[in-house]
Amino acid sequence: MADSKKPLILITNDDGVNALGIKKLIESIAPLGETIVVAPEGPRSGMSSAISAINPIRISLLRSEENLKIYSCTGTPVDCIKIGVDRLSYRKPDLLVSGINHGSNAAICVFYSGTVGAVFEGCIIGIPSLAVSLTDYSPDADFSEAGRVGNFVAKKILQNGLPEGICLNLNVPNIPKVKGMKISSQTPGRWTKEFEEMKDPAGRSVYWLTGEFFNQDPDNIDNDEWALANGYAALVPLRIDMTDYDFMKKMKNWEK
Amino acid sequence: MADSKKPLILITNDDGVNALGIKKLIESIAPLGETIVVAPEGPRSGMSSAISAINPIRISLLRSEENLKIYSCTGTPVDCIKIGVDRLSYRKPDLLVSGINHGSNAAICVFYSGTVGAVFEGCIIGIPSLAVSLTDYSPDADFSEAGRVGNFVAKKILQNGLPEGICLNLNVPNIPKVKGMKISSQTPGRWTKEFEEMKDPAGRSVYWLTGEFFNQDPDNIDNDEWALANGYAALVPLRIDMTDYDFMKKMKNWEK
Repeated sequence: MADSKKPLILITNDDGVNALGIKKLIESIAPLGETIVVAPEGPRSGMSSAISAINPIRISLLRSEENLKIYSCTGTPVDCIKIGVDRLSYRKPDLLVSGINHGSNAAICVFYSGTVGAVFEGCIIGIPSLAVSLTDYSPDADFSEAGRVGNFVAKKILQNGLPEGICLNLNVPNIPKVKGMKISSQTPGRWTKEFEEMKDPAGRSVYWLTGEFFNQDPDNIDNDEWALANGYAALVPLRIDMTDYDFMKKMKNWEK
Repeated sequence: MADSKKPLILITNDDGVNALGIKKLIESIAPLGETIVVAPEGPRSGMSSAISAINPIRISLLRSEENLKIYSCTGTPVDCIKIGVDRLSYRKPDLLVSGINHGSNAAICVFYSGTVGAVFEGCIIGIPSLAVSLTDYSPDADFSEAGRVGNFVAKKILQNGLPEGICLNLNVPNIPKVKGMKISSQTPGRWTKEFEEMKDPAGRSVYWLTGEFFNQDPDNIDNDEWALANGYAALVPLRIDMTDYDFMKKMKNWEK
């Protein structure tokens, strides 16, 4: 079954196994090796690095071909990676690709995104890992350009590897042809006007998460939001060691 | 109602508004100022920075005193912070404290923890933010020492502030009296043997998340796991800009 010469690739997403984005990602990435897809059975947007700490998960094999197996999972995107590596792969994958997300995961969205959460998990496990997102939320979005750029970066990773503890976050603007790809930094910012209040049929208040992104550094051409706004794909290297070593030194006098 | 001279403090957790840990945190922190508690109505362990992207949330006022208001929220810990700041605070809080968590949030648990997820959110919003966890999962854990150290760090933050984009992760070992507090770094590691397979009553497989933590740098005395294992509380400064700037420079030849 296993062709050990081919790279073993793990694919997931957070929009669910039936989303158009993951179908396009499989088309774009699966030809690079032997592929195992483990994706949530339904949408898991905004699930971050959540894990199923309270309830068990289930898996179903949906499709089995020589170089492509597709599983759905009742859990979160991180659960998909954990069970994909722990139970469904015969060895540690050479590459993890997550996406193609319906909508941007640039800037601080790395904290909320299940697509990126899966990639942090791959990185923790020691797999070179890439998140791919398209800045278009519509169900009939055109993923072809994001698929093309994702394929380019995936091949780069398979050739060069990635340093331990670093993963990649790729966002592709919603245009037919990007000007190029910029190596970028995570744009600082926050969401404002976050909730819309409505009444349920019984007249009780419910709050829907919504909001607007406020870019705290809009003129910095190194930021991923700048690249996207200017017609470039943005590729950000993210580190999973979140320690701030400079401030750690300055804090030494807090010790007691 | 609002005493503008007192610090405004926002408190949350991921074990739910009725957990013993948050009651002990309120006892320990609320005397430092005017306090608003917004916590999940039930357990939200492992929720990371998840947000309620698909369904709306609801809030209930459980208790209202002059300097202490307690709300429960149907959403995630991050939802609690978002709605706490957007709808339930008359101004931006001066301090956010999350916890006291039942169980360690050291090392890479910062990725999975809802307690820490809430603190990243506070940091994104620009609030000096602190997560407090006790390395004891038992429901009748003794939180008094964690409360004492948490109060010490909270006062330090109120006196000194925190740099923008940096938040703090405090873990306290499960012993009656710590040797002291060490400023630490996030221990690198991963979880292994992650699932236990069982059969449901119909004979179908379900997988429970479990596992063992594998410490990739056990001899580093700067790591938070080392501090905890040696009788110290561990305080880690975490940065929300996850960009790896060194590798970003090296990647420039990936641009196209």
